[in-house]
Amino acid sequence: MAAPVLSPSRRLRRTPFSDGVEAAGVRAYTVYNHMLLPTMFRSVQEDYRHLKEAVQIWDVACERQVELRGPDAGRLMQMLTPRDLRRMTPGQCYYVPIVDETGGMLNDPVAVKLAEDRWWISIADSDLLYWVRATAIGWRLDVLVDEPDVSPLAVQGPKADDLMAQVFGDSVSDIRFFRFGVFDFQGRDMVIARSGYSKQGGFEIYVEGSDIGMPLWNALMEAGRALDVHAGCPNLIERIEAGLLSYGNDMTDDNTPHECGLGRFCNTHTAIGCIGRDALLRVAKEGPVQQLRAIEIDGPPVPGCDRWWPLTANGKPVGRVSSAAWSPDFDTNVAIGMVRMTHWDPDTEIEVAAPDGLRKAIVRESFWL
Amino acid sequence: MAAPVLSPSRRLRRTPFSDGVEAAGVRAYTVYNHMLLPTMFRSVQEDYRHLKEAVQIWDVACERQVELRGPDAGRLMQMLTPRDLRRMTPGQCYYVPIVDETGGMLNDPVAVKLAEDRWWISIADSDLLYWVRATAIGWRLDVLVDEPDVSPLAVQGPKADDLMAQVFGDSVSDIRFFRFGVFDFQGRDMVIARSGYSKQGGFEIYVEGSDIGMPLWNALMEAGRALDVHAGCPNLIERIEAGLLSYGNDMTDDNTPHECGLGRFCNTHTAIGCIGRDALLRVAKEGPVQQLRAIEIDGPPVPGCDRWWPLTANGKPVGRVSSAAWSPDFDTNVAIGMVRMTHWDPDTEIEVAAPDGLRKAIVRESFWL
Repeated sequence: MAAPVLSPSRRLRRTPFSDGVEAAGVRAYTVYNHMLLPTMFRSVQEDYRHLKEAVQIWDVACERQVELRGPDAGRLMQMLTPRDLRRMTPGQCYYVPIVDETGGMLNDPVAVKLAEDRWWISIADSDLLYWVRATAIGWRLDVLVDEPDVSPLAVQGPKADDLMAQVFGDSVSDIRFFRFGVFDFQGRDMVIARSGYSKQGGFEIYVEGSDIGMPLWNALMEAGRALDVHAGCPNLIERIEAGLLSYGNDMTDDNTPHECGLGRFCNTHTAIGCIGRDALLRVAKEGPVQQLRAIEIDGPPVPGCDRWWPLTANGKPVGRVSSAAWSPDFDTNVAIGMVRMTHWDPDTEIEVAAPDGLRKAIVRESFWL
Repeated sequence: MAAPVLSPSRRLRRTPFSDGVEAAGVRAYTVYNHMLLPTMFRSVQEDYRHLKEAVQIWDVACERQVELRGPDAGRLMQMLTPRDLRRMTPGQCYYVPIVDETGGMLNDPVAVKLAEDRWWISIADSDLLYWVRATAIGWRLDVLVDEPDVSPLAVQGPKADDLMAQVFGDSVSDIRFFRFGVFDFQGRDMVIARSGYSKQGGFEIYVEGSDIGMPLWNALMEAGRALDVHAGCPNLIERIEAGLLSYGNDMTDDNTPHECGLGRFCNTHTAIGCIGRDALLRVAKEGPVQQLRAIEIDGPPVPGCDRWWPLTANGKPVGRVSSAAWSPDFDTNVAIGMVRMTHWDPDTEIEVAAPDGLRKAIVRESFWL
């Protein structure tokens, strides 16, 4: 039987770049923040090879923004995360775990500090707007919280600097990692950060105003012809190799940041005001009892991982795999999984219950990049 | 080019009934509350015909529950909605618009009052859990808020009573509309309400515990053979004919309940404590300037409505269509659209910018059922 198609509806929002994505021959989508996110153009393996060798334009408009504006914007931002934001300056981007009152993760966005009283939170797949706005109201903060008409467009791949320079000028290469600058495109200001959901290098352009979306898409496509530019998207294989986590896949609100290996983005002791701080103090001190790990799975290419695959040792449960794919470059199955501390040491041999049967697997010291 | 497929991933959650849905030959999905929701089995028209003549089992596990439990559960529930809940008793279900501090709709769920201190909110497509939990924390309420392992399974169609009686006994027919009772299935308690997202009659079973999902699915399928039972799903054509709204399609957080024609579910004056009450008092008194209407669209069957189609009169914008389909029974295109008050009177002639060009359309007095 053919793979089920995705039924179109207004509820699954199109993006300012959807016309370009369709013209480029998108073959598969996922849904992310009630919006269409392409997942494949040629094939996942062809897209992967091309991403590592050339440059791609990604419609990641589904990374919606939650904008905080007003005198209490900074206070509210600190209430959301155990990362200490006191030294963050306008022009910086921070990866910030967002936690609830129990320390469970609600989202793992990038916070963009535009000014002392203005922030964008570039969110993963959950309606963080609801959490932030209800918090602002409940605590009577003087801050406006909404979703602006801002849609990120990513330029990723080793030739990203070359392409961006042609459209925005050479100074775009001066942007440092997780910093942003403001650049002109056809008379419009664009926030451009050196960031993105791959380890191949590149930028994210925060496109303000849907009307300028396709002109920018077309300008990048045109300028990149000699660089073999293609439409692309976050690549399953590459992101697992690189250990880039996916909220909803690799972690949920059941997990603390420490379980997700994000302890380095938590300053639980000094993040005064964070709603989940009390709950996290103990886990920050003692460490978690399970943690995400890179896992190598034996055998031929695994099928798609559409549910948690149990991890066992001698038949006893020790965790679960949440993302997995065959890696052509490393000639093995690469995976991300939550593993109990009894079995999380490097080179521990465990088993994974894949859909086609039990396979051998090994816990790795680090990801593949 | 073939319609884009939906990429499977753990993030798009399977349901306790997914194995049954797949065995029944699901052909299309949508994503709803980060979960798979079937949209088509044979064809939308065949499913529609069968729904109106027989009985269907629907996997609507994506109607996730937000559970409120504790001494402040009732107070919190009233904070969420402008519907006055004071006379609601355990055993009742209420359709409740949920609004933010500006009166904008955040969700349009069914609230199930299990006990004075325990509620389920059976939600439409947005992470209402985030709003409710942050509200509980911000206002320091004594209430537990979480998502329990409860997955609704709907039995819809004219033969729904016959089928349900075979599995749960004749007394299931005594359940009145939007009331519920507790029934036994294999030693497990099941909350069963007379409700559902069609106008063909039927029930929703709140299945508590994923492990009992497939046994119940199979028991219903087995018991319904002589009734021509089939796997089904909310049907686009039938729900438009019936005027059943879809959050994210027909309304967003830009719209008040009154704009959505839900004024009869608002008692803004007496719903003391509702967060959006102040903002809604004026619109409750003066009425909205635009409102959802049934709209009949001329011409051959319309294509799928995956974005707002502008409504115009003499070239001037007067609204937009958000849902549309060809209705075999009414031999016309049925649609739902937001229309400005200057053009919302019955029989007003307007135009709709469908993808294949401008078509004539007529505002109707009421929906088709």
